[in-house]
Amino acid sequence: MNSLDNIVSLCKRRGFIFPGSDVYGGMAGTWDFGPLGVMLKKNLMDAWWKFFVEDRDDMYGIDAAIIMNPRTWVASGHTATFADPLVECKECKSRFRADKIAKDINESVTTDEFLETHTKCPNCGKENWGPIRKFNMMFSTHVGAVLPDDNEELANKNIAYLRPETAQGIFVNYKNVVDTFYPDLPFGLAQQGKAFRNEISPRDFILRDRECSQMEIEYFVAPETWSENFELMRSLQHEFLEEILSLPKDKIHELEVPEADRAHYSKRTIDFMFDYPNGEEELMGLAYRTDFDLQNIARESGKSMEYRDKTTNETFVPHVIEPSIGVERLFLAILSSAYTEDEINGEKRVVLKLPENLAPYRFCVSPLLKNKPELVEKAREVYEKLKQKYGNITWDDSGNIGKRYRKQDEIGTPKCIVIDFETLENHTVTIRDRDTTEQIREDIANL
Amino acid sequence: MNSLDNIVSLCKRRGFIFPGSDVYGGMAGTWDFGPLGVMLKKNLMDAWWKFFVEDRDDMYGIDAAIIMNPRTWVASGHTATFADPLVECKECKSRFRADKIAKDINESVTTDEFLETHTKCPNCGKENWGPIRKFNMMFSTHVGAVLPDDNEELANKNIAYLRPETAQGIFVNYKNVVDTFYPDLPFGLAQQGKAFRNEISPRDFILRDRECSQMEIEYFVAPETWSENFELMRSLQHEFLEEILSLPKDKIHELEVPEADRAHYSKRTIDFMFDYPNGEEELMGLAYRTDFDLQNIARESGKSMEYRDKTTNETFVPHVIEPSIGVERLFLAILSSAYTEDEINGEKRVVLKLPENLAPYRFCVSPLLKNKPELVEKAREVYEKLKQKYGNITWDDSGNIGKRYRKQDEIGTPKCIVIDFETLENHTVTIRDRDTTEQIREDIANL
Repeated sequence: MNSLDNIVSLCKRRGFIFPGSDVYGGMAGTWDFGPLGVMLKKNLMDAWWKFFVEDRDDMYGIDAAIIMNPRTWVASGHTATFADPLVECKECKSRFRADKIAKDINESVTTDEFLETHTKCPNCGKENWGPIRKFNMMFSTHVGAVLPDDNEELANKNIAYLRPETAQGIFVNYKNVVDTFYPDLPFGLAQQGKAFRNEISPRDFILRDRECSQMEIEYFVAPETWSENFELMRSLQHEFLEEILSLPKDKIHELEVPEADRAHYSKRTIDFMFDYPNGEEELMGLAYRTDFDLQNIARESGKSMEYRDKTTNETFVPHVIEPSIGVERLFLAILSSAYTEDEINGEKRVVLKLPENLAPYRFCVSPLLKNKPELVEKAREVYEKLKQKYGNITWDDSGNIGKRYRKQDEIGTPKCIVIDFETLENHTVTIRDRDTTEQIREDIANL
Repeated sequence: MNSLDNIVSLCKRRGFIFPGSDVYGGMAGTWDFGPLGVMLKKNLMDAWWKFFVEDRDDMYGIDAAIIMNPRTWVASGHTATFADPLVECKECKSRFRADKIAKDINESVTTDEFLETHTKCPNCGKENWGPIRKFNMMFSTHVGAVLPDDNEELANKNIAYLRPETAQGIFVNYKNVVDTFYPDLPFGLAQQGKAFRNEISPRDFILRDRECSQMEIEYFVAPETWSENFELMRSLQHEFLEEILSLPKDKIHELEVPEADRAHYSKRTIDFMFDYPNGEEELMGLAYRTDFDLQNIARESGKSMEYRDKTTNETFVPHVIEPSIGVERLFLAILSSAYTEDEINGEKRVVLKLPENLAPYRFCVSPLLKNKPELVEKAREVYEKLKQKYGNITWDDSGNIGKRYRKQDEIGTPKCIVIDFETLENHTVTIRDRDTTEQIREDIANL
């Protein structure tokens, strides 16, 4: 069964993802990538960077700090509105996100509306609630020499936040990039990096975590061209998901977000939904943010965000199309699409059918027997040669050959190359295919 | 002059590094990497990963969360001792790091010792000091549903910290990796990621910032082999700095840290010092951390950190050799070594003599004249071909050819390829060398 539990279990068992700070009993909402997870994550982040940035002439990279000037979040609206409805049980003092424990209400629920749902406390079972309060999801900290016994005024002066999205790290650099590189419109600024959200109840493995990696592009366009550039980014997103990452088309669904549900700054949003093991969830987003952010920055900073067209000399504030992906959501989409249980000659197995460009290892090289020095020596030779050529090659001489295949199947290695006694005679090796388990013999020179 | 100011200026002028949140007047101690900085930073981080992790069979990658279980910092000693001496001027209320404004005292200075230095307040000039207080440099935050008016006890229960070093993200995963991969000793766990230190007075550009990227390895060894593995890592560090990154040997100095100055956990430390424009500063560190961290984790978590030798069945807690680099320090070492001012035919220029494997762009392709469609078309053809092959190629048709050379010199592009009228006749192009400014003609087919 391709259930979330099976994937979580595989991730821990094979070293893709461990619970954060596991040795201390964890840290809710955080996850640590293990050796194989690091490789898969790096492969997909590099694939995004190559496709959306390196291979294009209209994209520029940015890598902004996580701790930003707090005026950023006043301008963006996060200080005022980036909040979830929090409710406290007066009996047991447990706190919950109101719209997650009651049915048919949304984030803007009022206290009266919540009380009408007659929800029982998930912890103590009673129904005795305090008022709905807005809980801001930004993590706050103090920057500079603030001491624990300082008065509130001094402490508040030094408050800063961990960025809740990478997007604003791009917008604050828009003017510097325009003044330095004089890019023609349309052009995009791209960033990969961490973002932090203090979820009241993190859940669903890496889908709703408190610390995640985002890959975002702000694509600056002439206002009257927004529609065609929206379509361009829309088709690039599909190409990236379906051609570069080989995600199954039939699991990806576009959701045209109706006006009432869109963020206040967006004039059009398409959520790219994905069929995860636990149901349909957002995988990535595409939003037409208009000039909302640049106008806010202009107002808050007092600096002009206008762009001067080189041909017409006309000045205007560009509009923005934003394709945005969460790395962990993409990671889970890839893992859950690849996760397969099948039966080979009556024996059940788990196999990760990862595409070759994403699999942690491209090949596994093995000597048939570990205690035959001539096999081991020959196998090391093949291993070194392939490692030189491809980089991501693994060596396995543990247990018997069947066990090795099971392990490589579970971590998604497309091909296993085995050096046996025939190799010593005719320089051919066995190549075993992960998905079909078929074996062929091939000359070493052709690897 | 290869001064820090000149490098800061070049970084902003050419889009390597902008002050963090620049549009809002900055955010002290944070810096944003611009388009060219992102490329250089990525090149050097990838070079480290390839050299220390991918190319070796004894290394495993880790990517742990930034927000860790707070018991991590109790065990590591950071909660108790990761502090700087803070002093406040009673007159103007300014706060300073005591050991930075007074001479000949160190981090463990007492109030009496500080008062004896008769230091004047750098802000108001008076000499009326409060007591020395220990200021913990970890950024703290609250995780979970804590509201601003919650009492201190509840708030304190939910305190967490931004990791002040990536090392502990590795140590907490040691046991999971051992139980999953059964690695032979010695083996290393490697991590690249952000670390945060609330410096009282950030300064010296990116050398002492509040948010930095680290590249750290914890190399686990059998206790009796620490010395030989220390030497192995020492030689790898030299090879990485001098062969892979081409940093000048004569600017790198080993400093054998005497016992009195070593961190309490270290039995041997070598600081790799570098001649920066403003003087010698630490570039990277190599420490023998003994079993200090694993023993602390065993005590705090109650879990065994023992390793079982597969051959002898003997169990013991491994010792650790730690090679550690700050990405920003390395970035500045590379920039300041590359920064050169010289004179070509009586004209002064700034040139970044970056090695080819680190330069943001390997080639710049240009048509001699922008308004000749046949030149532009041919140049685009060459550009596309090279871009396909190398990836990091730039196009420049702005201004005149001399201006373009100046710009490419300043951003460190090793070769400029110019398509001129002769190209249309005999398929040769001009290749101009950044360092010598010499030009040769080469057939397009040989590029």
